[in-house]
Amino acid sequence: MRAAPSPEEVRRNNLGSLLQYVHLHGATSRAELTARLGLNRSTIGALTADLITAGLVSEAVPRERGRAGRPSLVVSPEPAVHAYALSIEVDRLRAARIGLGGRILDRRETERPPGMPVLDTVQPLAGLVLQMRHAVTGDARSVGTGVAVVGRARQTDGRVRLAPNPAAGKDPAGAAFRAALGGALGVAGRLTVGNHADVSALVEHSRGVAVGCDNIVYLHGDVGVGAGIIAAGRRVAGHGGYGGEVGHMVVNPYGRRCSCGSRGCWETEIGEYALLQHAGRGGETGRAAVLGVVNAAMRGDRQAQFAVRQVGEWIGFGVGNLANIFNPEAVIFGGTLRDVYLAAAAQIRSRLNAIALPAAREHLRMRTPGLGNDAALIGAAELAFAHLLEDPLLNACF
Amino acid sequence: MRAAPSPEEVRRNNLGSLLQYVHLHGATSRAELTARLGLNRSTIGALTADLITAGLVSEAVPRERGRAGRPSLVVSPEPAVHAYALSIEVDRLRAARIGLGGRILDRRETERPPGMPVLDTVQPLAGLVLQMRHAVTGDARSVGTGVAVVGRARQTDGRVRLAPNPAAGKDPAGAAFRAALGGALGVAGRLTVGNHADVSALVEHSRGVAVGCDNIVYLHGDVGVGAGIIAAGRRVAGHGGYGGEVGHMVVNPYGRRCSCGSRGCWETEIGEYALLQHAGRGGETGRAAVLGVVNAAMRGDRQAQFAVRQVGEWIGFGVGNLANIFNPEAVIFGGTLRDVYLAAAAQIRSRLNAIALPAAREHLRMRTPGLGNDAALIGAAELAFAHLLEDPLLNACF
Repeated sequence: MRAAPSPEEVRRNNLGSLLQYVHLHGATSRAELTARLGLNRSTIGALTADLITAGLVSEAVPRERGRAGRPSLVVSPEPAVHAYALSIEVDRLRAARIGLGGRILDRRETERPPGMPVLDTVQPLAGLVLQMRHAVTGDARSVGTGVAVVGRARQTDGRVRLAPNPAAGKDPAGAAFRAALGGALGVAGRLTVGNHADVSALVEHSRGVAVGCDNIVYLHGDVGVGAGIIAAGRRVAGHGGYGGEVGHMVVNPYGRRCSCGSRGCWETEIGEYALLQHAGRGGETGRAAVLGVVNAAMRGDRQAQFAVRQVGEWIGFGVGNLANIFNPEAVIFGGTLRDVYLAAAAQIRSRLNAIALPAAREHLRMRTPGLGNDAALIGAAELAFAHLLEDPLLNACF
Repeated sequence: MRAAPSPEEVRRNNLGSLLQYVHLHGATSRAELTARLGLNRSTIGALTADLITAGLVSEAVPRERGRAGRPSLVVSPEPAVHAYALSIEVDRLRAARIGLGGRILDRRETERPPGMPVLDTVQPLAGLVLQMRHAVTGDARSVGTGVAVVGRARQTDGRVRLAPNPAAGKDPAGAAFRAALGGALGVAGRLTVGNHADVSALVEHSRGVAVGCDNIVYLHGDVGVGAGIIAAGRRVAGHGGYGGEVGHMVVNPYGRRCSCGSRGCWETEIGEYALLQHAGRGGETGRAAVLGVVNAAMRGDRQAQFAVRQVGEWIGFGVGNLANIFNPEAVIFGGTLRDVYLAAAAQIRSRLNAIALPAAREHLRMRTPGLGNDAALIGAAELAFAHLLEDPLLNACF
């Protein structure tokens, strides 16, 4: 703490708290803000006035009035203040414009051809942003761009290693990507890059199914498997930002070779490839193919059921290990793991129960993402909003 | 932040920072405190005076004088202020009296007969504390007792499940243990219980080999294996305090039955039992037996070498998994794993390199505990000192 913070520091901090509150909870009455933030009414009034002047919130008389007396004014985040969110996935590139408050105002998508290097995604992504920028009307203002990228540590399969924190280690490919995208976006400005599973975990924690849970594991599945992990309320990033590579936890020492060079990694047993192989559809790939197997299993197709069962066993196995390590309250299944989870939930739970210690799993809930496929986009936008929420006045001049 | 902290809050906070600094770093000159704590000289003088009045530090003219001029007074933690530390291990019970500053002033030890329930350790532990209390002379004051206990989640092998935080979940055995020990200790007062590996991790982080590392895995091995994990500078405790059970991460789905009911848990491959079995010494148990195998391997005994190699392989395997999950800077081998690590370091590293992604392991250092076998005792004392360091004046009246 050292010296006491100055009144100006306290004010800026409170401005951030108020803006963060309405950003997460939407329109909120002054009365509720007073209660939630533990500040008195006149302070809330002054802070709101400052944020209105900065164009970050608006204030209105509520439409519904539940009781007599002068109604408490309602403070709303200003969606004209927005961020661009990009999601780089194995087989598609997505972009959205997201307003303060977290609503998606516009979205675009394009295919990512198999094996396209991350650096080559810069032009199509910039194109999507340009389209959205042309569609913006009025005095909308962008705070910057957040990027969620699938995969960070696998160089063997064409995926670029992207350190979330560029200062954390040598990461020439990540630096080149950042420089190229920053150049292509021009005035869309400040760029923040995060891992797909990490930003999904954070946003499910702040406004999804894991609100109030301080220990969660968010699993994203596609060809590979990665995790965004929150322990004691903080992201488990690791020393260089490469934590969460649960897809390379070896579960089967006698299993298949993995793209990383090891053998029997979790993703070789629960990734798309394993499911499609077990289903006798080894030639297919991608989200649609996975859904095809899951739907066939639901309809009674024996081989598809076998495939879902096999993969479900190994999902429960790995989740059991993670439960013993993290004792989490929630495990969330995203990407194609969502669909497999829905088809194999009972089996996953049964295997999990056999692997995990009772104490480690007794409060564990399994969930699908509350924000669905938008978790990564909204999470990417949060990366861009973070600067603004930390110090609204310093960052309002964008 | 809400309202600005009062001058009194700032002062108490600074008192805690100063006391914490000399507690961790030992005798420190006022000049260094001024620099390290970012406070001015007169504030340091006033804070020191307050802590002297409270009997928590003493001040003296330094013995050696490196340069001319008036020497800066040196502030030292007052070892008359002490904590009792208890360590409940598989085959022994240890107790120590530890002064503010972390020095062990007295220590006692007794055997724990095989299978003795945790509740039955209360009387012998209280006996050890009583012996030490009788040996105390002068105006020494105790801040309370910290307890490090091996194992938390295994009920199958006679180990009591002890939640570090009693409010976190139902834990009748832990509550009974706490009540019994509290009663037996009487005036030794305030009791704080933690897991053996957790407190060892924290103390290696604050004053051992992992100072400055924010992502560490401390492994404690005996019959079983547990971990104290720090990620992003915080302990990975999990929802109910049962995180870190890495010994029950299944590494070999076709392996041996584990005491937990599962099969192929890491501890079935790297615990004492596995090592002694491989060495053809299945009838032996305990620390001495493990050392016997390690020493025999060093002397060239083929079967002992085979045993160390087998176990080393599986240690590297599991550490590789943990590296992919946590991307830690340091992995520390405590308990009997320390000895096995020293005999098999090269092999462990080689297997780890095969399992862990390059990005996840490139800065990973493997270490033995800087505080040796005393890590758990000093860590237990830290549990007892924590209250005092948080608010020295509030807690100085003990």
